[in-house]
Amino acid sequence: MSLNEIVMGIDVGGTFTKFGFIDRDGACLADSSIPTHAEKPAEDLFERLFKQSNLIFQKISDKHKLVGIGIGAPNANYYKGTVELPPNLNWGVVDIVALVKKRYNIPVAITNDANAAAIGEMKFGAAKGMKDFIVITLGTGLGSGIVANGNLIYGADGFAGEIGHTIYDPNGRQCGCGRKGCLETYASASGIKRTVFELLCNSTEESILRKINFTDLDAKMISDAANAGDKIALEAFDFTAKVLGLKLADSVAHLSPQAIILFGGLAAAGKLLFEPFKKYFEESLLPIFRNKVQILPSGLKSGNSAVLGAAALIWNELDKK
Amino acid sequence: MSLNEIVMGIDVGGTFTKFGFIDRDGACLADSSIPTHAEKPAEDLFERLFKQSNLIFQKISDKHKLVGIGIGAPNANYYKGTVELPPNLNWGVVDIVALVKKRYNIPVAITNDANAAAIGEMKFGAAKGMKDFIVITLGTGLGSGIVANGNLIYGADGFAGEIGHTIYDPNGRQCGCGRKGCLETYASASGIKRTVFELLCNSTEESILRKINFTDLDAKMISDAANAGDKIALEAFDFTAKVLGLKLADSVAHLSPQAIILFGGLAAAGKLLFEPFKKYFEESLLPIFRNKVQILPSGLKSGNSAVLGAAALIWNELDKK
Repeated sequence: MSLNEIVMGIDVGGTFTKFGFIDRDGACLADSSIPTHAEKPAEDLFERLFKQSNLIFQKISDKHKLVGIGIGAPNANYYKGTVELPPNLNWGVVDIVALVKKRYNIPVAITNDANAAAIGEMKFGAAKGMKDFIVITLGTGLGSGIVANGNLIYGADGFAGEIGHTIYDPNGRQCGCGRKGCLETYASASGIKRTVFELLCNSTEESILRKINFTDLDAKMISDAANAGDKIALEAFDFTAKVLGLKLADSVAHLSPQAIILFGGLAAAGKLLFEPFKKYFEESLLPIFRNKVQILPSGLKSGNSAVLGAAALIWNELDKK
Repeated sequence: MSLNEIVMGIDVGGTFTKFGFIDRDGACLADSSIPTHAEKPAEDLFERLFKQSNLIFQKISDKHKLVGIGIGAPNANYYKGTVELPPNLNWGVVDIVALVKKRYNIPVAITNDANAAAIGEMKFGAAKGMKDFIVITLGTGLGSGIVANGNLIYGADGFAGEIGHTIYDPNGRQCGCGRKGCLETYASASGIKRTVFELLCNSTEESILRKINFTDLDAKMISDAANAGDKIALEAFDFTAKVLGLKLADSVAHLSPQAIILFGGLAAAGKLLFEPFKKYFEESLLPIFRNKVQILPSGLKSGNSAVLGAAALIWNELDKK
């Protein structure tokens, strides 16, 4: 009996690292996760990960053959196979592809999580059959993966797709990158939190959010408040959508995508974000682009999407050969 | 004796239409131009053009074979082969590729002038060997052609590459597109003229430009004044460079190009524009992109660059086969 080909997708997070065995159709045969231990070197993580993944693979190895490994990780460089100075991991600069290949002499590829998400949507999700689209991940920050002419755009150095660091207001909010007014300081889970505090300061409107301190406040509390009719929370979503609409209209002017896919924690707020976003986005577009760009939620199973994206990355490489 | 393959490049302008016969190395064997007669239909232009081009081609036809025709034209759609409602031509929507193919049954392709310029730079100019770069044409407006992964980005509808219509200030200057604050209302020959008038109004600085009315003022007068030390003119270049630097830093965040090539009338001001632009551009970049992106002038022979770009478009198609 011939063995079915599968790949391993690995999603490296600051706290947990998830992995799964994914077939060519995007079905997950087995998955698990381990703690990342961010303070330890990358070697430590991958040693523990492969011990665990081997145990799981043994249960399916009678029918399956591992043909590739795809990895999504912060600050990953697709061209070099490296992760470089990730903000939440004590890794320094490390050649992850070389490290993994010492153990598995099969094709290995790495990219950042937003790029992996974009390839995941193209192979298994909302962007199936599309050649030009943008995935926006609205988490703590704003990540993006851009596909044009059917290829992910890595740019000259592997770091393309930083729409979160386009500038909304050069005199605006301090960003972790050292500059001011980056899009992600407005349109992200942490951005909407900052917006709530700006609104609480500028207005005298009553709000249940006045009882919550900055550290405790999260995007879920803001969407719960908005769903309960809290005006500050609703205005925070409206402003977030306005900024995102204005800046993504600039992305459309560059790339004229068929669709923009909104993904991640803040996108889970659903119509609270999508409805005002669509309105402001259309208003902000150059007229020739109006009513052409689909705005879609992710088509990947939530909870598993980052692993699927990492698996899609390596399936995409294998399909090129 | 075997014949050398050549293509015809055609650059349709609002006043004149230029054409030339260009070989695979970008050498121009013969060229000429005719008046466009913008008020007449497209058929009229191409009938006159082919009459003229035939006369010229006869002189070189003993040694050359015409294998393709490339066209640069305003509002051209590469996918459809059409020109659609060009602002300066009374053409409506017209299928130019079909029109040309009635006469010449050889490969024909059309795109807008900025995209043609980008392919021209890639094949014959400053972007030879590059796979990721952006060409910015600073004329009456601001046009752009984007190359990523070695391919021009046309987007889902053929209209990608409208960096001139990214928004600098949503409450800013009225743009011809119906919105406000587009980059081209600041960074273009007409944009710098508007900036001079804003500075003349806001400051009390003496300036030779106070003697020139809005209609008469052009970019050459502003650069002449700046070269003579006129403070208003120098400040106008500084502000233009600042806006362009800020917005092109956003383009880099999307695409991470190896180079940005500045092209067209306003780029002819040379260091008056390039020096402050480089400073503001670097300041505006996300740190990981600093000191990586080359800022280059066009590598195409001026006066002939649009015809070379149009020829490069069709050579690029022929090379794909």
